[in-house]
Amino acid sequence: MEPVNIGIDLGGTNIQGAAARGDEILSRGKIATRAKEPATAVLDDIAKLALELAAGLPIAAVGLGLPGLLDPEKGICLIAENLGWQDVPVTEVLQEKLQAPVFIENDARVAALGELAQGKARGCKDFIYITVGTGIGSGIYIDGKLLRGSRWCAGEVGHMVMDPRGEECTCGNRGCLETLASAPAITRAARKAAAYNPESVLAFVRPEQIDAAAVFRAAIIDKIAAEIVDSAMTWLGIAIANLVNVFNPELVVIGGGVSLAGEELLQPIQIAVDNLCLRVQKNTVTITTSALGDRAGVAGALELIRQNLG
Amino acid sequence: MEPVNIGIDLGGTNIQGAAARGDEILSRGKIATRAKEPATAVLDDIAKLALELAAGLPIAAVGLGLPGLLDPEKGICLIAENLGWQDVPVTEVLQEKLQAPVFIENDARVAALGELAQGKARGCKDFIYITVGTGIGSGIYIDGKLLRGSRWCAGEVGHMVMDPRGEECTCGNRGCLETLASAPAITRAARKAAAYNPESVLAFVRPEQIDAAAVFRAAIIDKIAAEIVDSAMTWLGIAIANLVNVFNPELVVIGGGVSLAGEELLQPIQIAVDNLCLRVQKNTVTITTSALGDRAGVAGALELIRQNLG
Repeated sequence: MEPVNIGIDLGGTNIQGAAARGDEILSRGKIATRAKEPATAVLDDIAKLALELAAGLPIAAVGLGLPGLLDPEKGICLIAENLGWQDVPVTEVLQEKLQAPVFIENDARVAALGELAQGKARGCKDFIYITVGTGIGSGIYIDGKLLRGSRWCAGEVGHMVMDPRGEECTCGNRGCLETLASAPAITRAARKAAAYNPESVLAFVRPEQIDAAAVFRAAIIDKIAAEIVDSAMTWLGIAIANLVNVFNPELVVIGGGVSLAGEELLQPIQIAVDNLCLRVQKNTVTITTSALGDRAGVAGALELIRQNLG
Repeated sequence: MEPVNIGIDLGGTNIQGAAARGDEILSRGKIATRAKEPATAVLDDIAKLALELAAGLPIAAVGLGLPGLLDPEKGICLIAENLGWQDVPVTEVLQEKLQAPVFIENDARVAALGELAQGKARGCKDFIYITVGTGIGSGIYIDGKLLRGSRWCAGEVGHMVMDPRGEECTCGNRGCLETLASAPAITRAARKAAAYNPESVLAFVRPEQIDAAAVFRAAIIDKIAAEIVDSAMTWLGIAIANLVNVFNPELVVIGGGVSLAGEELLQPIQIAVDNLCLRVQKNTVTITTSALGDRAGVAGALELIRQNLG
């Protein structure tokens, strides 16, 4: 029985996974994340999903993307705010449960790796992958190498301060990009706008039914929703323009839940980049959405195994 | 006669240079930049300065920092706005004049290299050098390697947009960091404030006598001047905090003319970093001013030769 690799993408809402042998995906699975339970429960679920995906075949290795700050050398999740985790020895626990080597990395970086291996970044050496969903994260490649930072914490683009007098962020600061362009930011703005604009379609649904996906759908026919999307994507565009000026990448790929809204969201971002980037930078960069969508994480987790085992 | 290396730092105001053998500086020189003359005149001056510094000794090699975007492989200055240069074949011209190999690099990156070789960044692998003067530029080192970008244009931190509705920048955009924290921005703000605050010491000098250095001096005793410095350095601090969140460096060194104002300018920057950076990032970064001051460029230009010739 030839062994399989398991790629897992742990998110705040779902855990996705796949079993693969070489480039061939043998099975896929998705379960809800028990984000309010202790870490041990979530790690149990990950192990169960891995065994289910392996379907009786031996597991060669596991790649895992996690939504938090990690020490990948020690295999520890230092902090994952959406999960309430702190100093969780992920690698040790899973290796014992699955009796196979486990490699972990931040989820945005893992998705970037997926984009590099199988998506639009194939063959790129200098690119920025930005994931926009509940949070805003990134995986930044420079001359073919992942930017890690002196303590593995580089790439926190969601906490660049865009508006020092802006709204409070989950990190405790004000006006971070996440407060302006994440899915919850879009939801919050739409619920507020619904209360003040009785003519908007947003006012015809219950506030709790409004989420970012609904706002993107409404934006096609509704001026208020369109303005909210435009504002959020313009802020995202300003942040991306700043990153393009600093990194001079050849490609920026936008992934995560918000990218599923499709190519239209690119227009305000492209306008910001055209208006705000220096000549060489803007003339040599392509801005695009992910081709892999929410499968980038699992693709990257499988690639993480290849990178580590060669 | 043992040959010497020549390091030159070409700025918008001055050309500084030194002749060195190994680590020993044999002579130093400084002349005014004929910024309004064509490139050929400035290159003539550089060659003359180099020969003067060599004082009859043969020149082994020349390292040169230039205030603009370069193609260092072709030895061309693509654009240097403060000098009005476009597509100037710097290396070719100087090599012919001096009959020695010439290595060029962007001035901010050269100063960063000086800081790495002889300044506070010695031994650092992940650090950001920011030069704040007429413009705001940077040299960013990641894991010991200079960030160049896909077309050598990385590091343009002065053109990060901090305030989308802000003042117009020399680059044509609005609200770039340079419009808020550069020496001309401080001068501009002080001249405006002088007109509206007759009680400020700034109002007691002629507007054309007010420059950034004067504002820093006045800030010690004058509330209006202090507010201007604080505002500029707070914007610089926000930009630095954003870079620290993205790069997770171990060190940020502030150089350039503004850094000569001394350690006091660090306070609003440190406050911004403390307030706006994520936990790991802020706990592991040191913010400091350059130890080399305006000699970082020449030190880096000499180091550039060593890097290229080994």
